[in-house]
Amino acid sequence: MISQLYRDMLKTKSVIRQLSEYATRRGNEIGYENVFDFSLGNPYVPVPGTYSDAVIRLHETLPSSALHGYSPTLGHPVYKKKVAESLTERFGIPYTPELIFPTSGAAAALAHAFRAVVLPGEEILTFAPYFSEYDQYVNLTGAVLRAVPADTETFQINFRAFEEMLNENTAAVLINTPNNPSGIVYSEETIKHLADILRERQERFGHEIFLISDEPYREIVFDGKTAPCIAAFYDNTITCYSFSKSLSLPGERIGYAAVSPRCSHADELVPMMGQISRGIGHNCPSSTIQLAVSEVINETADMSVYEANMNLLYDKLTELGFTCVRPGGTFYIFPKALEQDSVAFCKKALQYDLIMVPGDGFGTPGYFRMAYCIATEKVQRSLAALERFVMAEYR
Amino acid sequence: MISQLYRDMLKTKSVIRQLSEYATRRGNEIGYENVFDFSLGNPYVPVPGTYSDAVIRLHETLPSSALHGYSPTLGHPVYKKKVAESLTERFGIPYTPELIFPTSGAAAALAHAFRAVVLPGEEILTFAPYFSEYDQYVNLTGAVLRAVPADTETFQINFRAFEEMLNENTAAVLINTPNNPSGIVYSEETIKHLADILRERQERFGHEIFLISDEPYREIVFDGKTAPCIAAFYDNTITCYSFSKSLSLPGERIGYAAVSPRCSHADELVPMMGQISRGIGHNCPSSTIQLAVSEVINETADMSVYEANMNLLYDKLTELGFTCVRPGGTFYIFPKALEQDSVAFCKKALQYDLIMVPGDGFGTPGYFRMAYCIATEKVQRSLAALERFVMAEYR
Repeated sequence: MISQLYRDMLKTKSVIRQLSEYATRRGNEIGYENVFDFSLGNPYVPVPGTYSDAVIRLHETLPSSALHGYSPTLGHPVYKKKVAESLTERFGIPYTPELIFPTSGAAAALAHAFRAVVLPGEEILTFAPYFSEYDQYVNLTGAVLRAVPADTETFQINFRAFEEMLNENTAAVLINTPNNPSGIVYSEETIKHLADILRERQERFGHEIFLISDEPYREIVFDGKTAPCIAAFYDNTITCYSFSKSLSLPGERIGYAAVSPRCSHADELVPMMGQISRGIGHNCPSSTIQLAVSEVINETADMSVYEANMNLLYDKLTELGFTCVRPGGTFYIFPKALEQDSVAFCKKALQYDLIMVPGDGFGTPGYFRMAYCIATEKVQRSLAALERFVMAEYR
Repeated sequence: MISQLYRDMLKTKSVIRQLSEYATRRGNEIGYENVFDFSLGNPYVPVPGTYSDAVIRLHETLPSSALHGYSPTLGHPVYKKKVAESLTERFGIPYTPELIFPTSGAAAALAHAFRAVVLPGEEILTFAPYFSEYDQYVNLTGAVLRAVPADTETFQINFRAFEEMLNENTAAVLINTPNNPSGIVYSEETIKHLADILRERQERFGHEIFLISDEPYREIVFDGKTAPCIAAFYDNTITCYSFSKSLSLPGERIGYAAVSPRCSHADELVPMMGQISRGIGHNCPSSTIQLAVSEVINETADMSVYEANMNLLYDKLTELGFTCVRPGGTFYIFPKALEQDSVAFCKKALQYDLIMVPGDGFGTPGYFRMAYCIATEKVQRSLAALERFVMAEYR
């Protein structure tokens, strides 16, 4: 019998993907350069040349079986070692290769982390606004995702609501900082407070509450700052990372889950992820891409463009009267819509060829997301369209 | 709470991987060239040069975002088109790109196919001997795998046992031809008979029984023959393919699920697999590898070495008195052990540096598998070790 579960899901297509497809169709009509497509987090900045050089050199020098042979079940030793060394050096936490599980991007890292530490029926708490795919990621494990309402003043954590929602059935807390869609970076104060609460509740409930930290935007932080390292604040942390954004290669599907050396069951969790892989058909990222990324492990694409884009948009949006928390990183901004119904708001914007995503799917109706991982020149041209849109519809 | 399910699985490590790791350790002691490692299906033959050329050319010519950007959820259009055209041309079945779901190898194709057409609690029947990972692949979907006992005379299908085991709760039948571990290619007669039975039972039970055909060895067939195309014989067929063996790049994780155009719900199954992907964190194979394989879609690595190896081994094994069905393809052979306990048999063989896998994990105790995807020169040298082993232990 074909699965009604997945069949029913066909009706709930990703709004982001639908908008992105609309943008492509509209681009065919009027030229894609005239569509201000802020829908998708597909980086515009090129991959570092050193990455491409590494791929070419690997193909020219390594024997075929060394380059293209099976990775061991728990990942390529070279990649695991490079990731562990890089994390240790940057964050001062003694990661070893055995604590690194290579995955096909952050989505796969989350898929393994959820299954390793959350049982079907248990709860995962996350904080609105949150990446819209989390619902599907969690639901299909049999666990339950509950979202703590947003603190819309700051998009830091709404601790009062969080403490009310935390309960004995909470197996994990899922955070994403720098945050998609808000662009906010959790402050050290926020993370410390979160860690304190989790430690206290672990004690009270008598079981672990794991912190699953989804960090694909860790390297995209503005104003010369760096994002605090989550695992430094709380022992039971599993960090889920992707090089999609920092190296601009989302299509290559390369990331990892890193289990903190101070985590309960630290030595068991990566081997368990290997077992989970057998059931979900994951079986490691591409061997070539594990090796190529190993050679550029501490590099990033040129991130400065995102900060330039953010400043342009933030200034214009506030000038136009939008309520908007200034992003500290990522390539997203999450202003309040100019009417309560953000779906209606984004629909009207389409008439000005502005493609923006309503906040509803991010658990925060009334707001909208703009992904500004596009050329600065295009962001500049979009400002006039934004102004026309606001003046015509809301003045 | 960490998952006891996956924790318990740690105790049941893959015997194949353990043997392969033993071979590596032993190789460090006496030189790997002196270890006759028949444990793992990791191809020795190099990838075609045209593949490496394609990867290099893609990196030199395509813009970064075109090469490394996100694939659409249902896969890269170029790859889907090339696969569909190749299948249509070779097998005369009108596949379209919409019926092709790109996956990270055959394991991921199976993970999606199982979830699309089998509900938790329903049964999948397969035929011994069968690839040992099938148990884990199926168990973690919540479905139940049952193995029809082998027809050890021919390693074709034991139809009497199959007909007894088929029941109303059977949602799918999983076949693997050319077969790992037996090396046998199902005859047209076998496939026709299987299809007849399935059609009759579909009618009787009033629901579909899907045929999930795992075909990573489709291109490795001996004696100038080709393997019959399963989907040509039965409409409700989902073909799961990997380029791991045909192009010698198992570490790159590239394959697909192809839904027969004549399959029930044909137009829904690939989109459903896209939904399944969200839950298991799959999200397409590497974009570069989808594009590179698209350029060499009808090529293969040099497969002749496997036939040469098979002939050497088959002749020696029969000369030494082994009962052995002659493989029609793959790079496996599955002789009967010289004592009832094939684990004990394989353990004794280790003293002669012969690494072979007991049949128990393949659902067929009393037999053993040799994977001969290694250099012919090494197969030749192994023959004396085989002879010493048999003469010393069983004469």
